[in-house]
Amino acid sequence: MASNSCQQPGATEASDIPSVPQGFRLAGVHCGIKTDPSLEDLSVIICDQPTVAAGVYTQNRIFAAPVAVDRERTPSDSVRAVVVNSGNANACTGEQGMSDAVRMCESVAHLVEAPAEQALVMSTGLIGELLPMEKIVNGIAAAGQQVAASGAAMLAAARGFMTTDTVPKMAGRTLSIEGHSIQLSGISKGAAMIGPNMATMLGLLMTDAAIEPHDAQAMLAAAAAKTFNCIRVEGHTSTNDTVLLLASGQASTAPLSAKDLIGFRDALEEVCQELALAIVADGEGTTHVVTVDVQGCETPETARQIAQSVADSPLVKTAIAGADPNWGRIVSAAGYAGVEFDTSGVSLEINGVTLYRKGEPIPFNAAVVSESIAAARDVHLLLTFTEGSAAARMWTTDLTAEYVRLNAEYHT
Amino acid sequence: MASNSCQQPGATEASDIPSVPQGFRLAGVHCGIKTDPSLEDLSVIICDQPTVAAGVYTQNRIFAAPVAVDRERTPSDSVRAVVVNSGNANACTGEQGMSDAVRMCESVAHLVEAPAEQALVMSTGLIGELLPMEKIVNGIAAAGQQVAASGAAMLAAARGFMTTDTVPKMAGRTLSIEGHSIQLSGISKGAAMIGPNMATMLGLLMTDAAIEPHDAQAMLAAAAAKTFNCIRVEGHTSTNDTVLLLASGQASTAPLSAKDLIGFRDALEEVCQELALAIVADGEGTTHVVTVDVQGCETPETARQIAQSVADSPLVKTAIAGADPNWGRIVSAAGYAGVEFDTSGVSLEINGVTLYRKGEPIPFNAAVVSESIAAARDVHLLLTFTEGSAAARMWTTDLTAEYVRLNAEYHT
Repeated sequence: MASNSCQQPGATEASDIPSVPQGFRLAGVHCGIKTDPSLEDLSVIICDQPTVAAGVYTQNRIFAAPVAVDRERTPSDSVRAVVVNSGNANACTGEQGMSDAVRMCESVAHLVEAPAEQALVMSTGLIGELLPMEKIVNGIAAAGQQVAASGAAMLAAARGFMTTDTVPKMAGRTLSIEGHSIQLSGISKGAAMIGPNMATMLGLLMTDAAIEPHDAQAMLAAAAAKTFNCIRVEGHTSTNDTVLLLASGQASTAPLSAKDLIGFRDALEEVCQELALAIVADGEGTTHVVTVDVQGCETPETARQIAQSVADSPLVKTAIAGADPNWGRIVSAAGYAGVEFDTSGVSLEINGVTLYRKGEPIPFNAAVVSESIAAARDVHLLLTFTEGSAAARMWTTDLTAEYVRLNAEYHT
Repeated sequence: MASNSCQQPGATEASDIPSVPQGFRLAGVHCGIKTDPSLEDLSVIICDQPTVAAGVYTQNRIFAAPVAVDRERTPSDSVRAVVVNSGNANACTGEQGMSDAVRMCESVAHLVEAPAEQALVMSTGLIGELLPMEKIVNGIAAAGQQVAASGAAMLAAARGFMTTDTVPKMAGRTLSIEGHSIQLSGISKGAAMIGPNMATMLGLLMTDAAIEPHDAQAMLAAAAAKTFNCIRVEGHTSTNDTVLLLASGQASTAPLSAKDLIGFRDALEEVCQELALAIVADGEGTTHVVTVDVQGCETPETARQIAQSVADSPLVKTAIAGADPNWGRIVSAAGYAGVEFDTSGVSLEINGVTLYRKGEPIPFNAAVVSESIAAARDVHLLLTFTEGSAAARMWTTDLTAEYVRLNAEYHT
């Protein structure tokens, strides 16, 4: 298997590769967008039958051509193919970019003799450059020859999503619903360290469950809101962020019942969380993954605002990099989140140790807390308020000098 | 002059020291909050007569005791003294902190036999630690013996504001209004590199113009909104930010006329801008000061939102550090500012060179633009939209590995 022979150090082991759900075949190939011929840069996903598709997209006002195309086409009950390229984002490319995105859909739909409107497209990589369309069209044809439902195909497809990612990112669950075995498998890309790719986050979820388009859209939006939209690396929303959910319905005859949908929804959220955390964890320049929990707020939105303010603070992130239990930076980041709260009700724990309780600093062993930060890659911050019972959780990274060096040294 | 003998490399030269306006006397002393005895850590400003005072304060929900005290007391027409300490922020210090702030006011008011209510207080430094009140009370008494209207006293007072600042920050203007010479002089502190002091920004403006309290408050709020509130270093609002304006009225008999107020307002904005930019420029870890201009927006608020989004983006800031004309990072930071705009109307210039026009990237000589960024400390970004005629300007720094190293290595 070509994709295994060029597997990078640290790449996902074969045992981590989830099964391909029924009704899908995939491939990942090198078509020439990336200069290194051992790196896949194009992935194709074929749906054997018209398939339900849902999508969530970047909220950035400046969005790429593939986002414009997919947003128009989802939710859908008749998607037949998806094409994904890495190395070029097809963003800020004007009219030509739009027609190139449409042409990618045409090419991939042609593999199954479907109209272009039944295909979706995702791109990630450099922005402001036109796609090398001849290479891409040839790559789609080559991928069409290789599509398979094997683990090797899944891995190659995941590798085709990668830009500065150091590992391919996959996750899956097998559910048993009313005697049927349902498979849910996903791929994501995005790295905590940002290079040429604007930190674009892509996600693709495939399942053989039977789900109505509106249910798929609602569940994907809810899952993304609690997972992909809760990871903060540098607060910079990309032009290309896209997560798609495809449901082939091949594993069951009737759509999932309301009760089964709940079980599926939980699994979907789990898989999305695993894929999202893999993005946070994959930072060359980062040394910690920080979970920011905010509890006791009036509304989920205010909890989220506070969590985001803490997760985005460079002062908090540098403190974590330095294993510094700097509660002042954390508490004051909550203070400027734009949320009204009773300051005498604020408490803070770092890794389970209380540093600040009901608005007052309390004595703690700074060396012990510092050691607990330094000793592990995961750090847990818990801020509690006395405004209500709403909560929010976000994940972020620390901010290291290495991160900055990598980002400053990259040149367009 | 003691303060000159311990002047640090790069400290402001005597020629940069503005005159002390009539009606004020100042001193800066070492009282023992800082460990190095050559560093001033306490400043006292005496007003010879009851003086008009206005204040603007941090919007952080978590604010320090001195902010709580001053906010209650301004605007005022009867301030007699101000005390400022550095090295300890008296923030997150509960009831004891409040009573310490009040006691500082009592001590400094006692110098002129005024009630505590006629004094104001500012603190900056470590948070969560109680003030060493005995040292401070003794320091206030000692400073009271030294207050003078000399340049040396102005410099010593400015040095008493400093925390991680590498230079004392002062600016002034002399205005001629209806045959009267009006002096406006100011001090600020705050450094782009953040250490123990949470980047607290303090400012003190003194003038001998006669201004009504409500005019002083309105002019200070307007000037701060366009200057101190437009500098972004890491988007982290401190618990202690305070800017005070004191107007003694000693240079004229009647309050300034409406016409004269306009001239004074312009001078106030100039001085505030100079003091604010001195804060941005004073970053040990920074290599560029970035002016972000946003034009052609629907409202000043939307222009400001976009400018802030660009100024706060770590990806933009690391690109500037690397002299990288990465227009994609800048344009996409505008895109996620939460402002609706026509993306086909967006244009971008870096240092006068157009990189993006009406929604399309245009060819430019990247080496030349990169060289123009690398060659100078000042970088100019201009984003234009086609939504209206509102504009905003913000100043920020680049983000260097050295900045992160300094912030990660500081331990609480």
